[in-house]
Amino acid sequence: METHSFFIDLLIILIAARIFAELAVRMYAPSVIGELFAGIVLGPSLFGWITISETIRLMAEIGIILLLFEVGLETNIKSLIHSRGKSVVIALCGFFFPFILGFIVSYNIFSLSLLTSLFVGGTITATSIGITVRVLTDLNLEQSRIGQIVLGAAVIDDVLGVMLLALLYEFSIGGGINLLNVGKVFLFVSAFFVLAPVVARLISLLINRFDSISEIPGLIPTSIISLVLFFAWLAHVMGAPELLGGFAAGLALSRRFFIPFGIALHADEGFADRIESQMKPIIQLFTPIFFVFVGLSLALRDIDWSSPTVWLFTLFLFSVAFVGKMLGSTFIRENRFSRYMVGLSMVPRGEVGLIFAELGREGGIFSNEIYASLVLVIALTTILPPLLMKWLNSRESIIN
Amino acid sequence: METHSFFIDLLIILIAARIFAELAVRMYAPSVIGELFAGIVLGPSLFGWITISETIRLMAEIGIILLLFEVGLETNIKSLIHSRGKSVVIALCGFFFPFILGFIVSYNIFSLSLLTSLFVGGTITATSIGITVRVLTDLNLEQSRIGQIVLGAAVIDDVLGVMLLALLYEFSIGGGINLLNVGKVFLFVSAFFVLAPVVARLISLLINRFDSISEIPGLIPTSIISLVLFFAWLAHVMGAPELLGGFAAGLALSRRFFIPFGIALHADEGFADRIESQMKPIIQLFTPIFFVFVGLSLALRDIDWSSPTVWLFTLFLFSVAFVGKMLGSTFIRENRFSRYMVGLSMVPRGEVGLIFAELGREGGIFSNEIYASLVLVIALTTILPPLLMKWLNSRESIIN
Repeated sequence: METHSFFIDLLIILIAARIFAELAVRMYAPSVIGELFAGIVLGPSLFGWITISETIRLMAEIGIILLLFEVGLETNIKSLIHSRGKSVVIALCGFFFPFILGFIVSYNIFSLSLLTSLFVGGTITATSIGITVRVLTDLNLEQSRIGQIVLGAAVIDDVLGVMLLALLYEFSIGGGINLLNVGKVFLFVSAFFVLAPVVARLISLLINRFDSISEIPGLIPTSIISLVLFFAWLAHVMGAPELLGGFAAGLALSRRFFIPFGIALHADEGFADRIESQMKPIIQLFTPIFFVFVGLSLALRDIDWSSPTVWLFTLFLFSVAFVGKMLGSTFIRENRFSRYMVGLSMVPRGEVGLIFAELGREGGIFSNEIYASLVLVIALTTILPPLLMKWLNSRESIIN
Repeated sequence: METHSFFIDLLIILIAARIFAELAVRMYAPSVIGELFAGIVLGPSLFGWITISETIRLMAEIGIILLLFEVGLETNIKSLIHSRGKSVVIALCGFFFPFILGFIVSYNIFSLSLLTSLFVGGTITATSIGITVRVLTDLNLEQSRIGQIVLGAAVIDDVLGVMLLALLYEFSIGGGINLLNVGKVFLFVSAFFVLAPVVARLISLLINRFDSISEIPGLIPTSIISLVLFFAWLAHVMGAPELLGGFAAGLALSRRFFIPFGIALHADEGFADRIESQMKPIIQLFTPIFFVFVGLSLALRDIDWSSPTVWLFTLFLFSVAFVGKMLGSTFIRENRFSRYMVGLSMVPRGEVGLIFAELGREGGIFSNEIYASLVLVIALTTILPPLLMKWLNSRESIIN
């Protein structure tokens, strides 16, 4: 790719993201919706001005891990651990219900093959942690009890999603279901989540120490980005999604970092401030690229809008994708408003669903019609909940 | 490219750049030398751990235009214009002497073909503005009179280099020399330099205005990066090197921006401060990638160290590449120290020379031996002057 055409692509993405986000906010929608629409407008769905290049994709990936890093940075581990019971309930329900309901719709109602039905279930299972987190941030709810429950649930959901993907992939290439492998992944991921924040914290203390003796400016941006990249890579190696590495690194650098023997690991306040003020511009630069990227990935033009099967399948699937994620929230003891908000937060599927759908299409598991339906379901689950949440949030007092 | 292997590559580049830069500074060398060595060590010259991917290359390109943007931001246009006479002398001499001497060495002494000789001359002609600027910054000289002369000269040199490249390229594909085209490029580039800062200034005032009414954080990083990308793209379209677009955008946003009717274009001081503090971390993140990239591009292992021709040709060529750039400084009225510093500043060839050499090799114009010599000459001109300048700078009082 020529340098100048990459520059113009990146420029268009950044400006469109900003303009659509400003418009969205003025129309009382969360800004992330604007960024997604920017991608839909620029991409194959509408004008087709931008095709996703590898560099744009990789910069988007940096964007999402940095967003999770920022969320981790502002997370209070104590309250995250405190809400773990509810998070687990939300995550497990939000994982199994859509998967099973999606499977039933495909296998029993639309008589699709076993493998296809399993993949349809998988596609509508995983929550997009990025979209969830961004919407909560847009509504200033990321530090609320709702935010902590959803965050914990989304992390668990993401891990379950990756394990399901690995299982289904092995099944699709005829390897059968290997529960030993799944157990191994689960162990690794658990180990990662226990150890990563401690290791990251130790490294950050090293950076803090180095910061005072370094003779060249710019230590914080390069070393913190390196730290985040390292944990993203480590997460991948341990079998977890990369963005969880960013989250773990953020947790470790959080001011409210808390581990049983954590007293010795305290960095000074000034250091945390410097990290925040210097990382913010970098995070603000990269994250919009991710959401535009998700919008670009939706090829809504490919959908055969005249096919009744597409409409019917979409309708059924969307219903179970929506209800399946909402069900879990009825099992936790919170007021009505919080339950709705938690439920809605888990609905967006975004890029995770698209990865599943893409895999299914490339592997010949999904026909064009089914793929189109899935893209439509993903688009609806991604776009509607943020709007509903914003609306609900402005009516909190009426609902309770 | 897989996401996690990109992450690990970027991570290694960032960390190696930092470690080698810190070592360099402790060994009294400029930090840029450390970053270049990081690239040499990681790349095909030594361990071959990192191969340049498109994404790394494009991020390096962002790095260099951002560096030029930063330099522009800190440049005082008045003193740049003030030293234009000396800059022109330095640029023209530094352009013609190496070109002609390089041609003579190749054509008359080593009896190479006409086309090859012309390309050898071209390869050792263009100064690497990035390395020059970085060394001056490392020595805190970028705002000095020396800095202003060199900066002006390097910009002119870069424009001349691109015009020469265009000319030689046409000549090499049998198109003959088209002076009309060269004149057109010259006109376009001049127009760009007169108009770009004014336009960029107007846009920045728009951003400033928008900054106060925007409801979403992060306007400055995305909009300033967009501005820089836009002018880099525009520079390319007008036939100038992309990095000069970054420089023009920086000039326009400079606190010391000055144009005849400039009074109406003043933005508030606070805005300039916000731009500087928010752009710094982004610039510090991207620029080391560029210098490591230059080091990675040097394939020193490919050189046949046992060939006497390589050694002899390298020796001759390095001498004329060095002396050719130094000659111009004898024509300007400055003290001995300043003349040496200005001359040495213009010696580094870096990535510009490598682009020429690569083009020559791909086009079959350079044999392996000649290519190897050129890479060696470029490496020497890139690495020696920064060391000499640092040493000279510490002895300023003795020399004068």
